[in-house]
Amino acid sequence: MKWWGWGAEGEAPDFDCKPHLWRYIIKELRLQSAPQKRSPPPREDEVALPPPNTNAAFAAAMAKNGIKLHDDKLQRLQHCAGKSFRDLWHARRGKPPCAPDAVAYPQSDAEVAALIAAAQDNDVALIPFGGGSNIAGCLTPFDAKKRALISLDMTKMNRLLSINESAQTAIMQAGALGGVLEQQLNERGWTFGHFPDSFLHSTLGGWIATRSAGMQSDEYGCIENLIAGLKVQTPAGEWRVRPHPRSAAAANMKEIVIGSEGTFGVITEAVIKIRRKPEHKNFYGYFFPDFAAGLQAVRESVQRGEQPLISRLSDYNRTALSFAFRDDVKGGALKKMFASLAKSYLSKARGVNFAKCCIMITAFEGGAKECRAKFRAADKIFRKHGGVFAGSAPGESFAKSKFDFPHIRDYLWDYGIYADVSETATPWHNAENLRARALQALQQTFKSRNLDGWCGCHLSHSYRDGASLYFSFAFKHDDNADNLAHYFAIKKAVQDSFMQNGGTLSHHHAVGTDHAPWLEEDISPMGVAVLGGIKSQADPRGIMNPGKLRPLTFDNWRATIPAEQ
Amino acid sequence: MKWWGWGAEGEAPDFDCKPHLWRYIIKELRLQSAPQKRSPPPREDEVALPPPNTNAAFAAAMAKNGIKLHDDKLQRLQHCAGKSFRDLWHARRGKPPCAPDAVAYPQSDAEVAALIAAAQDNDVALIPFGGGSNIAGCLTPFDAKKRALISLDMTKMNRLLSINESAQTAIMQAGALGGVLEQQLNERGWTFGHFPDSFLHSTLGGWIATRSAGMQSDEYGCIENLIAGLKVQTPAGEWRVRPHPRSAAAANMKEIVIGSEGTFGVITEAVIKIRRKPEHKNFYGYFFPDFAAGLQAVRESVQRGEQPLISRLSDYNRTALSFAFRDDVKGGALKKMFASLAKSYLSKARGVNFAKCCIMITAFEGGAKECRAKFRAADKIFRKHGGVFAGSAPGESFAKSKFDFPHIRDYLWDYGIYADVSETATPWHNAENLRARALQALQQTFKSRNLDGWCGCHLSHSYRDGASLYFSFAFKHDDNADNLAHYFAIKKAVQDSFMQNGGTLSHHHAVGTDHAPWLEEDISPMGVAVLGGIKSQADPRGIMNPGKLRPLTFDNWRATIPAEQ
Repeated sequence: MKWWGWGAEGEAPDFDCKPHLWRYIIKELRLQSAPQKRSPPPREDEVALPPPNTNAAFAAAMAKNGIKLHDDKLQRLQHCAGKSFRDLWHARRGKPPCAPDAVAYPQSDAEVAALIAAAQDNDVALIPFGGGSNIAGCLTPFDAKKRALISLDMTKMNRLLSINESAQTAIMQAGALGGVLEQQLNERGWTFGHFPDSFLHSTLGGWIATRSAGMQSDEYGCIENLIAGLKVQTPAGEWRVRPHPRSAAAANMKEIVIGSEGTFGVITEAVIKIRRKPEHKNFYGYFFPDFAAGLQAVRESVQRGEQPLISRLSDYNRTALSFAFRDDVKGGALKKMFASLAKSYLSKARGVNFAKCCIMITAFEGGAKECRAKFRAADKIFRKHGGVFAGSAPGESFAKSKFDFPHIRDYLWDYGIYADVSETATPWHNAENLRARALQALQQTFKSRNLDGWCGCHLSHSYRDGASLYFSFAFKHDDNADNLAHYFAIKKAVQDSFMQNGGTLSHHHAVGTDHAPWLEEDISPMGVAVLGGIKSQADPRGIMNPGKLRPLTFDNWRATIPAEQ
Repeated sequence: MKWWGWGAEGEAPDFDCKPHLWRYIIKELRLQSAPQKRSPPPREDEVALPPPNTNAAFAAAMAKNGIKLHDDKLQRLQHCAGKSFRDLWHARRGKPPCAPDAVAYPQSDAEVAALIAAAQDNDVALIPFGGGSNIAGCLTPFDAKKRALISLDMTKMNRLLSINESAQTAIMQAGALGGVLEQQLNERGWTFGHFPDSFLHSTLGGWIATRSAGMQSDEYGCIENLIAGLKVQTPAGEWRVRPHPRSAAAANMKEIVIGSEGTFGVITEAVIKIRRKPEHKNFYGYFFPDFAAGLQAVRESVQRGEQPLISRLSDYNRTALSFAFRDDVKGGALKKMFASLAKSYLSKARGVNFAKCCIMITAFEGGAKECRAKFRAADKIFRKHGGVFAGSAPGESFAKSKFDFPHIRDYLWDYGIYADVSETATPWHNAENLRARALQALQQTFKSRNLDGWCGCHLSHSYRDGASLYFSFAFKHDDNADNLAHYFAIKKAVQDSFMQNGGTLSHHHAVGTDHAPWLEEDISPMGVAVLGGIKSQADPRGIMNPGKLRPLTFDNWRATIPAEQ
């Protein structure tokens, strides 16, 4: 695992071979020409970590339990944060803010419980760690008490324990990475169907702890719909949530553990809902004359119960960016497709303003007959709203590279271009307004700070009552200013616009450190108090992922990690 | 509202005219003949209530706020409990265990907040009251501190405030009774689609507080799926849950308020999810050779996403009881239907054991074409599992009398026959086993106490991973014993069997007083602690519906209200 960027060490898609990408970036960020690599990732030997704070009593308890603590530099670096913009900012500068003093890899519930017990006894703080891919600062240490800090890497607890064919559930250990989880199910003909962008680098436990949503959530549901039961080791004891299909026994405990970001305990096991692996999965593209028309189409399809597996609608900027990623094989299939597409689109949709045209990626799965029927139902609705069918090529292109996108941030960073995302959800009637306001807020911040910036938006998940909107933005390095201060201002602008326009602080990236300033406004002071009440029972001494799920002022938010010096 | 039974004073279905009913009861309960009415409901003047405990300071605060307190006998009687078996037992004997000292009818959030503030200041306990129809003892006062007790009747706050056509949501005050709510929506072409058996006598706020499920939940979802946002007045202040389509901001606060049974605060308003009123709703019946075959059919239809609006599968006993309710119009349509049905069934399903045959009621809604398509998809699955289509008559009969069933308890009680229900939910693989074990536990209890009893079961709500099973039971009055002790033993037997066989304490009737002995086993000690942690924040002085959502030992459970003297 890279400690300074996305994914595994040495692995990254080859963006250099994308002939249109730099052309697009140069135009959008008003560069003179393609920049030179200016800030390659640091080497391990360029980073100085303080020596680990070895809590002797804790270490002795671990030795007694046969649990190894790893405090070598690389493992501490790999576990010192997640992949939020700020996490990477500091890692890239060789100054990770607060590395754990050691990493443990528990292999059983008993070991997790022993780690928690010893941590309670010796005032050690624990941070549960799945794939380390969270981009909201959920893993960034933030302990006011400056206690010894142990990262609990859960990836050794990654086995499928059993499948219940009748209830279509499985018992799965929570440390399984997406690929490891799907492979074990696929081998037996089943699928979990949860595919967040981070799929390859995130775990079941991480999905639960951060309220993850996968790209097929319109059909499969988000993580809360995919979990039937839970086992959690808390400082106050084991917390079992029995896998009832439904219960009227007070609050839904599952919905309290989900989104708890490691602050109540360690999720070790889940009863997950599974489905038969579909025979076919077909991806397609549609063009819409503008974003508003696409919104109407998606809304109608969902409210009629005829939505595809995926409806991923990009606005014009996001559409243009997607096309900038296209390969350019001379005389190749893709090129032909684009040529024929443009022609077909022009002929079918006269009068359409190409400056506003938007692509939507859709998918359908099931048996061949089922796929056709679902496609026909959705297609009829999409056409009604001006959608033009673009065949399977755009869809296949999306499917092929669907887990590549998070790498682009690292790639651009090498060239001094900073990119990040913010996402929200809002009822349908707010969607177009919120999109306009959030983009306006971004553009105004670029302008007021004299930055050449880019921003775009896509709709990624839909519900009967609304949808999630996902904003991407980028700006180029400013030699004359504090670039982290630029970032804070931009991030604040877009998050503020969510709150002011009926959105939530995050649809599926969690609260973490990055969204904590908006927590109280979003869930109300009572919501914050309720989280505190639960914490007081599950983790009375406050050893679990300290400082999280608590509101922060904006100034404290900025100050949690010092700005660039 | 009756204070001793179900529904409105003077209103009850005419069961006397059901020619088959007594024949069935006489056979099943081994009666000599139809019994005489032996225990008619008491008159108001036969009940003695202690004088109201007037808390002068609280009354003064109310007077200052212009909030009237009603302490006349009838209103105190009407608000002294819900409709649990024990509630009615004591009411019928003219000995309601603990009537409220006064009833208030707040008309606004400000009035609710004023009531709560004055109650906190003066150590008065409040019990939020919707329709008063809860049958798990959620409304039964149980205050160890014996404080003055005020019932907050919410039914004056019953208005539809606005409709959002695009998001398909409405803002509705929580005191609206089912009929009042649906009428306001229907007038504008919309429906909420939530139809619990108590629909006519329960409120939106009550549905939320008790985690209600309606008979169309397979399509519409249970109450948690139908609520987008909430407004709750708590002793610690107003608690707003914003109507996000989805959010990753920590725990799902909606799922904490839902099922809170009035212990955290008073639900005053909800953003509810609504749909266009369907053009058609068609009810049908199917016969299955046995319950197991019906279970397979329902499971497959749900797991394929082709389930009807309703799949209500009765076992043989419950089927026979349903048929005992049929009208007997000579030469009428129903009679003909039954004759032709029997013939059709016999001819199509040779070798079927009639002693095990089970009826299932289904329904489909939407446009005519949509109804046909949905019917065809489900019908194919049902036939595959031995289902025989029984036409629309059984379905129409169910639809016509669907809200009548709760009245049967009062009717039988007049004749010295005691009836009640217990319901649960369990994963599919447990369903047939749990049904067998629960019925066995009931029969064994009848036998060991030398009672002539009856019991039956139906499946009422289905999910991908399991279903709810609903048990009805009855026994005749025993002149030589404590009949409430009989009841406790029976209720304990069936609830114990749920816990021992992978069920939950209740699928949709809530915890209340009646299921509190099983709370800790169901949600684990950590779950109970978490509820306490939330309560400590929302209601630090413990004035809201005291004694609820806390575990009880079985002995304390029995002792909460004294047995028959």
